[in-house]
Amino acid sequence: MNNHHEAGLARLREVDGDAGVALVGKLKTIAPEFGDYVIDFAFGEIYKRPGLDLKSRELAAIAALAALGTAPAQLRLHINGALNVGCAREQVIETVIQTIVFAGFPAALNGLAAAREVFAERGL
Amino acid sequence: MNNHHEAGLARLREVDGDAGVALVGKLKTIAPEFGDYVIDFAFGEIYKRPGLDLKSRELAAIAALAALGTAPAQLRLHINGALNVGCAREQVIETVIQTIVFAGFPAALNGLAAAREVFAERGL
Amino acid sequence: MNNHHEAGLARLREVDGDAGVALVGKLKTIAPEFGDYVIDFAFGEIYKRPGLDLKSRELAAIAALAALGTAPAQLRLHINGALNVGCAREQVIETVIQTIVFAGFPAALNGLAAAREVFAERGL
Amino acid sequence: MNNHHEAGLARLREVDGDAGVALVGKLKTIAPEFGDYVIDFAFGEIYKRPGLDLKSRELAAIAALAALGTAPAQLRLHINGALNVGCAREQVIETVIQTIVFAGFPAALNGLAAAREVFAERGL
Amino acid sequence: MNNHHEAGLARLREVDGDAGVALVGKLKTIAPEFGDYVIDFAFGEIYKRPGLDLKSRELAAIAALAALGTAPAQLRLHINGALNVGCAREQVIETVIQTIVFAGFPAALNGLAAAREVFAERGL
Amino acid sequence: MNNHHEAGLARLREVDGDAGVALVGKLKTIAPEFGDYVIDFAFGEIYKRPGLDLKSRELAAIAALAALGTAPAQLRLHINGALNVGCAREQVIETVIQTIVFAGFPAALNGLAAAREVFAERGL
Repeated sequence: MNNHHEAGLARLREVDGDAGVALVGKLKTIAPEFGDYVIDFAFGEIYKRPGLDLKSRELAAIAALAALGTAPAQLRLHINGALNVGCAREQVIETVIQTIVFAGFPAALNGLAAAREVFAERGL
Repeated sequence: MNNHHEAGLARLREVDGDAGVALVGKLKTIAPEFGDYVIDFAFGEIYKRPGLDLKSRELAAIAALAALGTAPAQLRLHINGALNVGCAREQVIETVIQTIVFAGFPAALNGLAAAREVFAERGL
Repeated sequence: MNNHHEAGLARLREVDGDAGVALVGKLKTIAPEFGDYVIDFAFGEIYKRPGLDLKSRELAAIAALAALGTAPAQLRLHINGALNVGCAREQVIETVIQTIVFAGFPAALNGLAAAREVFAERGL
Repeated sequence: MNNHHEAGLARLREVDGDAGVALVGKLKTIAPEFGDYVIDFAFGEIYKRPGLDLKSRELAAIAALAALGTAPAQLRLHINGALNVGCAREQVIETVIQTIVFAGFPAALNGLAAAREVFAERGL
Repeated sequence: MNNHHEAGLARLREVDGDAGVALVGKLKTIAPEFGDYVIDFAFGEIYKRPGLDLKSRELAAIAALAALGTAPAQLRLHINGALNVGCAREQVIETVIQTIVFAGFPAALNGLAAAREVFAERGL
Repeated sequence: MNNHHEAGLARLREVDGDAGVALVGKLKTIAPEFGDYVIDFAFGEIYKRPGLDLKSRELAAIAALAALGTAPAQLRLHINGALNVGCAREQVIETVIQTIVFAGFPAALNGLAAAREVFAERGL
């Protein structure tokens, strides 16, 4: 594994914008290397892999987080991320609605609430 | 909600092939209407919605099921489904590998095991 | 699947009262058909099935949601629903306490907190 | 907390029959007191509480275990338990089908598979 | 199972301090015996068992609760508990960071947020 | 993030023995870099961190995996790992039994079944 810090940071900025960089910065005081794991591993290693475009990665992230239902803040971050990399509002909503099938109505309802919040912040 | 049985059945056959139709048929003896819910609601209502193409739906299904980790048989069904609707082998693998980020290494490892099994059955 | 909208809406009103109808209405702006899925499918198809009375359905809903622990708002909705269809306060509490056995103390504690909130709102 | 061993053992036998007693016995070699926790606490304390009849307890157990999807053997045990204490086959099936709403189709499908297995063993 | 109330209460006070006793007291109005289950069973039976020291028990509790991600209040309680029984701040952080491996980045991030909150309250 | 491959491989061998190295090797055909993520990131980055000894890491791993209940093969791997790095059989059992408190009886029972299997393989 080479040092993927620069590539990871660029990818993090592309997907999550300043909010992502700020989130990682906030981790400095409690767990300094944690931000590096997010940047170097999650974004630098996993998200930079070829074979799946960024839009599909973000929709898959939304699907996973909405189904799990345990991390609403990260779900909102990735809904923002999906829109940042060019997903349409409709694609986000459809991915969330599909959660009914795999994880039930409450998970989908909570996913929609997250989407509504993000859309409102962005004035969509 | 109109009767979406025909459209749902066609979509089920497109995604899951004969295996999907057989699965639904097997439910007849224990819960006759359950198969209709799969066909009319899951496939006829949700999967037929515009705004998200079938490939993205199947990759999102794989992301959700691999993250949850509670339904390995359905994960294999949707890995088959993804390949049936035209996803590349590589897209499936990338979606599963990304599970590391959202649900940890064991979930991703079990997802890879499911993919390996499906690829072997299909001679990929 | 016939059009079960009327029956589903009546059942939704019976179980969740005006709060349920309001919740479904709020979905209109983000995902117009989602409310129909709740009404036509969840309430019109599943909840209208014979073979299990409404009280048992609501206690089972509480058991499932308390065990999952990922949807506190829906748990409160179904605690209200259980009381609306005639379950005793004690039956709700017992169902939540039993969660200790199947999902551990934290899940049961969070379920009790949800119940306490609902009981307080209703002046029980 | 008084010693509820006798009451718990009787309740365990009533709900799970010889299979339950055998399961508890099997724990002796690895964790001798674990069986006592099942008997004294789970059955002697929780299951003996008034305010919820045994049928409702077992249906709630099925709802929780089917929604969680992580303990298929215990789900089968409680499907047997529900039938042992007088629940109708239909009530078990309805409780499992309702899982679609709260935890999605895969959880409900796996619950139905568990029910089919138990019904087959009992010749239902 | 003998009456382990005194031993359990002492252990609860040792691990969770006055916050734990207050939490149990708050349960009195809604489910009077629930507090006894926490004291007599969770602390009096399980936590008093020899073979694992209290520090390891609390780190294991943090690992389990951070991985599940469904009970943030109990996670904070056990982070406090770990510090109360002598775990170093660093051991808590390492246990939480390790969650990345078993349950993914969002679970670990939420665990770190819980730790940061507790450390701030204690002026660490 | 420097290249932690050598350190990670040594740690993997220390914790999981030949079984761990074989598992990683098996991933080569389906996802060649996945093994590197296990070695470089999970073991080379996370597991090599100071501040928590290996025994505590393995007990925390057991606690997390037993609570989640979705990865029995990895749970067995880490029970083996705990014994490999010097944990006593009793510490493993206590960590699993404690799962009752945080995730309920079925999770603890399945954890005990995993432990029994591993102990039997090792002739303990």
